[in-house]
Amino acid sequence: GERECGEKSGEEWVAIESDSSNVLKRPDLHRMMETTAQKLRLMGGTVELVDIGEQELPNGQTLALPKVVTATFGTDPNKHTVCVYGHVDVQPAKLEDGWATDPYNLTDINGNLYGRGASDNKAPVLAWIHAVEAYQALSMELPVNVKFVIEGMEETGSNGLDAMILAQRDTFFSDVDYIIISDCGWLSRRPALTYGTRGNCYFFAEVEGPKQDLHSGVYGGTVIEPMTDLIGILDTLISPSGKILIPGIREAVAPLSDEEWKMYQDIQFDMDSYKNKIGVTQLMYSNKVDLLAHMWRYPTVSVHGIEGAFSDSGSKTVIPAKVTAKFSIRQVPNMDPAMVKKQVTDYLHSVFAKRKSPNKLKVTMVIGAKPWLADTQHPLYEAGKAAVKRVFDMDPDLIREGGTIPIARTFQDVTGKSIIMMPIGGFDDGLHSQNEKMSRFDATGFTLVSSHFTLQEVLEQETGYE
Amino acid sequence: GERECGEKSGEEWVAIESDSSNVLKRPDLHRMMETTAQKLRLMGGTVELVDIGEQELPNGQTLALPKVVTATFGTDPNKHTVCVYGHVDVQPAKLEDGWATDPYNLTDINGNLYGRGASDNKAPVLAWIHAVEAYQALSMELPVNVKFVIEGMEETGSNGLDAMILAQRDTFFSDVDYIIISDCGWLSRRPALTYGTRGNCYFFAEVEGPKQDLHSGVYGGTVIEPMTDLIGILDTLISPSGKILIPGIREAVAPLSDEEWKMYQDIQFDMDSYKNKIGVTQLMYSNKVDLLAHMWRYPTVSVHGIEGAFSDSGSKTVIPAKVTAKFSIRQVPNMDPAMVKKQVTDYLHSVFAKRKSPNKLKVTMVIGAKPWLADTQHPLYEAGKAAVKRVFDMDPDLIREGGTIPIARTFQDVTGKSIIMMPIGGFDDGLHSQNEKMSRFDATGFTLVSSHFTLQEVLEQETGYE
Repeated sequence: GERECGEKSGEEWVAIESDSSNVLKRPDLHRMMETTAQKLRLMGGTVELVDIGEQELPNGQTLALPKVVTATFGTDPNKHTVCVYGHVDVQPAKLEDGWATDPYNLTDINGNLYGRGASDNKAPVLAWIHAVEAYQALSMELPVNVKFVIEGMEETGSNGLDAMILAQRDTFFSDVDYIIISDCGWLSRRPALTYGTRGNCYFFAEVEGPKQDLHSGVYGGTVIEPMTDLIGILDTLISPSGKILIPGIREAVAPLSDEEWKMYQDIQFDMDSYKNKIGVTQLMYSNKVDLLAHMWRYPTVSVHGIEGAFSDSGSKTVIPAKVTAKFSIRQVPNMDPAMVKKQVTDYLHSVFAKRKSPNKLKVTMVIGAKPWLADTQHPLYEAGKAAVKRVFDMDPDLIREGGTIPIARTFQDVTGKSIIMMPIGGFDDGLHSQNEKMSRFDATGFTLVSSHFTLQEVLEQETGYE
Repeated sequence: GERECGEKSGEEWVAIESDSSNVLKRPDLHRMMETTAQKLRLMGGTVELVDIGEQELPNGQTLALPKVVTATFGTDPNKHTVCVYGHVDVQPAKLEDGWATDPYNLTDINGNLYGRGASDNKAPVLAWIHAVEAYQALSMELPVNVKFVIEGMEETGSNGLDAMILAQRDTFFSDVDYIIISDCGWLSRRPALTYGTRGNCYFFAEVEGPKQDLHSGVYGGTVIEPMTDLIGILDTLISPSGKILIPGIREAVAPLSDEEWKMYQDIQFDMDSYKNKIGVTQLMYSNKVDLLAHMWRYPTVSVHGIEGAFSDSGSKTVIPAKVTAKFSIRQVPNMDPAMVKKQVTDYLHSVFAKRKSPNKLKVTMVIGAKPWLADTQHPLYEAGKAAVKRVFDMDPDLIREGGTIPIARTFQDVTGKSIIMMPIGGFDDGLHSQNEKMSRFDATGFTLVSSHFTLQEVLEQETGYE
């Protein structure tokens, strides 16, 4: 049956360690793209693996980017053409990070399927593929032409995809009427449609001192330690109360409108269950509107970690010679990544200069992804609302997404077509975390929504709204 | 010959990954102690593997400590008895840290033997063993009784050794006349004797927030991030110019005397070659006396790294749930580790409280090792100077050591006997760093010094200075 077939693909896909941020996993990532293409070929799609060139690494070396998979099911000029975007690369995951199960072995526990990429974004991609398979299994003609564009670099900033979309604007994308993205989650147990995402500027701040690590007993007190310098500059990014201290960042943010404030008031969101889910007693804001606003439409700074310092368990008395902090700033309208890059780089260099350290600071922006915002009154969203209502028997919440789907903005800018984000997956799926999962119920329900959405499109088309 | 035999032991010893800070390597560490005992047994020593009990881990579990090896060569009551202390555990090392060769495969490059533990402290222990073997090979009677006490927890604070020394004060240590430690290095190419070491208080500062790692896009801005809190408190430990900011620490330090100042002035030390060796353009202090004073007799703070945050290459958009900073404060007269523990813990909690964070801070002192200081006019040091003079044809520098040999202080306090530190190894041996090494020339020279030192002792004994 379809369900078993889908799970077989799910197991196969999750088993491939397609971590796009780890250059050593690049062969796995190439294999993931080939596996995806082969799945679509076997379903009778017209499939291409599009070469998008090479990636330049910080050390100056180059590495082949994973090819982008495009597929076409149906070319009837009398039908609308929908294009589903997804990605099959994943965030890093290791069993020792605290997973209860092997992150690369899809494991069923009480109806939840655990594995890296289960929710972000392998299952959603498969759900759309299953919607097409469902029509095929029922020998029903697809009510629309369906295209897929599936990439393998989303988790590190969709390198090369912008150029590919631009290059194929007048070919693959020329007959596309709208674009569907299912790379986000619901806010509660209530299904949702997403109309905005934050962008992301991801920085490396490297401080380099001695030519190699030093014994902290022998050298401590005589050298100016890179780690002390790095901590000093990181501590100037954001205040304890969440205020970004980099000049210019807060000033660029679009003010919260009364309309937005009212809309946030009505969204189903339980602060206590949210706190309980993440296991904290207190959040940065104690009321719903402030919290949702800072989740979706204000920037923030997160420091992810430091490469090059001692990070294992136990004690090591080392002065690390070169340490690189990884931090990111979420982007919202009307911030501009190029401007943020300059603001952050200038600020850190000025803060560092005050330390009068002989060490060398290098600031690099490795991801610069813009935010995206849609019009919730667009017919696409009306069709989405109707499909959710039909399958789940309730109206979806209209929400935004704190995370980043960098390509939404590009699709909109390059193709001029509208985009809808149809999330799949519970609010507790644990994207990017330990024990990421996708529930069977959500996955099956979403396959139905996908099918009904395309039907809905046909119905609406007949009433001639476009 | 002896040299080949020594190298064979060296290779065998370095090949054992006796990392005492990594609980997963404990079986290797037990094997290292057994290998050491077996070497001494085969030489005809009376050898014991002394059980020193268990270690309590931060998670509450217990783990057997590596046994301490004691060995006795000769029990003639008419001879003096010298006791050589050393350790055969090592600091962590991984090829990917930047080693040019496998750290656990002793590799000869141009007369230097590269490997973790080559200089700290496996070769020096073997050099003393070779001194005994040299007498045996020449069928010469040892001029003194020689004892060995060799431990496997030095790099993590010599857990259990204090109690063992106290327990055996009236047995194994009752006839010991003086103690020799060779667990440090020269300051230049000139041989040296060491008369002081810094102690070390090693801290874990853990900040715990959410119950698991979170996606920084989805949750960034809503949670109070443990990493931000941790960076905030780490940044209050030490100023950019090296001033310790923890109240009470600097006040406890014994002032620098005019005599010391003068002595430091006369020590052979080339600032430029020191800078060049470590690859920096500027040190914390620009004159020799200040630099030596901050290397040897002033405290400092080093932040070694953070456990629990993202530390790999690449980019990961994670909010780490629990992060643990590792930092240490070098101890000098008249600091007291128990007082330092209280000062640091109180200070960090007070700084943390000002942040009004809901996260939990836990400060633990995992190592609390006292400094040690000897009288350079003692006959032991006169004998050491004479032995060095005889082998290397130059007077040794009298130096202190920035690193820690925790047990020196205990030996002195418990046995009441005098201690001499006879360093072996170049100033560029890279202890605790990548590419640690020991030169053949230094190792051979030191074996001769060891032999002559014991002879010297006999000579001095005949002139009746004690």
